[in-house]
Amino acid sequence: MANKNAHNKGINPAFLAGKTALKRKRPSVDALTTAIIEGDVTALSQGITLVESTNRDHKKDAQALIENCLPKAVPSIRIGITGVPGVGKSTFIEVFGSHLTHLGHKVAVLAVDPSSSVSHGSILGDKTRMESLSVNDRAFIRPSASGDTLGGVARKTREAIILCEAAGYDHIIIETVGVGQSETAVHQMTDFFLLLKLAGAGDELQGIKRGIIEMADTIIINKADGENEQAARMARNAFAKALHLYPPKSSAWLPQVTTCSALENKGITEFYTLITTYKERTTSSGYFAKKRAQQNKYWLLQTIDSALKDNFYNHPEVALLLPKLTKQLEENSLSPFAAAQQLLDSI
Amino acid sequence: MANKNAHNKGINPAFLAGKTALKRKRPSVDALTTAIIEGDVTALSQGITLVESTNRDHKKDAQALIENCLPKAVPSIRIGITGVPGVGKSTFIEVFGSHLTHLGHKVAVLAVDPSSSVSHGSILGDKTRMESLSVNDRAFIRPSASGDTLGGVARKTREAIILCEAAGYDHIIIETVGVGQSETAVHQMTDFFLLLKLAGAGDELQGIKRGIIEMADTIIINKADGENEQAARMARNAFAKALHLYPPKSSAWLPQVTTCSALENKGITEFYTLITTYKERTTSSGYFAKKRAQQNKYWLLQTIDSALKDNFYNHPEVALLLPKLTKQLEENSLSPFAAAQQLLDSI
Repeated sequence: MANKNAHNKGINPAFLAGKTALKRKRPSVDALTTAIIEGDVTALSQGITLVESTNRDHKKDAQALIENCLPKAVPSIRIGITGVPGVGKSTFIEVFGSHLTHLGHKVAVLAVDPSSSVSHGSILGDKTRMESLSVNDRAFIRPSASGDTLGGVARKTREAIILCEAAGYDHIIIETVGVGQSETAVHQMTDFFLLLKLAGAGDELQGIKRGIIEMADTIIINKADGENEQAARMARNAFAKALHLYPPKSSAWLPQVTTCSALENKGITEFYTLITTYKERTTSSGYFAKKRAQQNKYWLLQTIDSALKDNFYNHPEVALLLPKLTKQLEENSLSPFAAAQQLLDSI
Repeated sequence: MANKNAHNKGINPAFLAGKTALKRKRPSVDALTTAIIEGDVTALSQGITLVESTNRDHKKDAQALIENCLPKAVPSIRIGITGVPGVGKSTFIEVFGSHLTHLGHKVAVLAVDPSSSVSHGSILGDKTRMESLSVNDRAFIRPSASGDTLGGVARKTREAIILCEAAGYDHIIIETVGVGQSETAVHQMTDFFLLLKLAGAGDELQGIKRGIIEMADTIIINKADGENEQAARMARNAFAKALHLYPPKSSAWLPQVTTCSALENKGITEFYTLITTYKERTTSSGYFAKKRAQQNKYWLLQTIDSALKDNFYNHPEVALLLPKLTKQLEENSLSPFAAAQQLLDSI
């Protein structure tokens, strides 16, 4: 029944099955929990669909499912991968993911794609990408959750991670595009952050988003193959130099710059070694656990913060008063502090 | 009666007079407004003291005073100056301020000092600094407002700016120390941001706070005198190179790096020319007015944001529940989103 629609090519058929199954009849939370922990891919898909649901009736069940799954999560490493469109993210993930499953790991690939709610597409959704990974038994691919806000998408993705870990996936890859605020969200839900770059055009240093460079635990110059190889090496050196200008990371990890050819399968083993070394070092220093605890706190504060603002700015009195006060502010007849006080007093 | 206390040396005696006067008998808001607009320094000091007051009864009067003063503010340029302790900020401000008054301008010097609430000192308070400026008729020096939070200090300083502008001060200098979040606050209340640096120790590029460099409209290598001169030139070149790595500013202004000796009065005229050029260019491009409007909006949102958080986290139910949920979060038995929901539902 799946794959009738060309848009659904390359998606794990279990996802579609799960989506349809939920519509028909959803198993109980306990049944779902048991099946997920047993590694049942259909149940995992159903669980994620439940977590993503905006239906208020589903909220309580979703919460119960998460709480059931939390203590069952296997030790994992969560890897964020970003890079502009065309940098070769999917080919990289396809090759790296296959390498991981070959080593006996289970890999889940999720995406945070702020554009998906507008385009109704999604990073992993409407493309025939990751063909071999999508039919790999030890891999689970899930298109980006849709949502009105990045915060909403991020929450859903973060809860999907927990379900995947309960289902035994020990390598979680979160993909995002190198635009907007999504990197911060992905950085705040992963242990290791990888930036994929291309060599060439002399823009190795200019036009790159500084914040993203600062987040990166590793920068890989991708497509270092054929005629591109020397340019990639030059780009690597330029980046390595530039990174010296950055303050040391609180993880005490020195960000690495390497080259890679996903196409020719070069640099993949090395990246795996890098990830493993990172996990070992930060685990023994205590940073790994500390960062996850900090991330929990970040999402707690973040969620409260946006709920408080939502409630405030959607309050009828505030919505009524705001345009009037904004006008007075523009005319310079009111100070911003007085305007704020009036708004706060109005509710 | 002033200057009896060594701690008060170098402070405009009018400030102390004002402080005492307010305690005794404060003029009416209308009388205060008129006197401030006439340039009465004692009234200006009294007005700022009123604005800084945490007494709830003073709040309404303070608000009325601000609203009276807003339309009377003279066109001005607000200059933020930062740099680590020892960089020579006060000597620079003393020399630059004297240059300004010599040209017929009126200059007000305020400070945002996050440490002052702890140390009960303040940047401009307990030092015999700016001796000639403090007795200069066309200059007004005000120590940092004290306050529990940076937000509170920032609000008070920002409202003090308005009173100074109503009193005819057309050059407002806001000083801060190169630590913590105070630079952001000062950047958000000034038109032009100056970073003072020292040459030497090979640390021209390392250890500098990247965020501050990004804010700077000009970097001045101070104390470029005597044996220091060549090192200062080298530091200038290194910074000029480093700035090329930064994305262009929305003001279209190219940040300048220059050297200066406040001691030998070198580079001061040049800095005045720079400021003037900046104001002319950004005024004709419309950026100057646009930035001020954006700053108003920033303080509106910022004030609302911190009030919402204050109210929430000080709510008895939240204060009661938070430690329990934080513990569950640490034990990994609750997701941060579920914890946030419980807190939000509790009020």
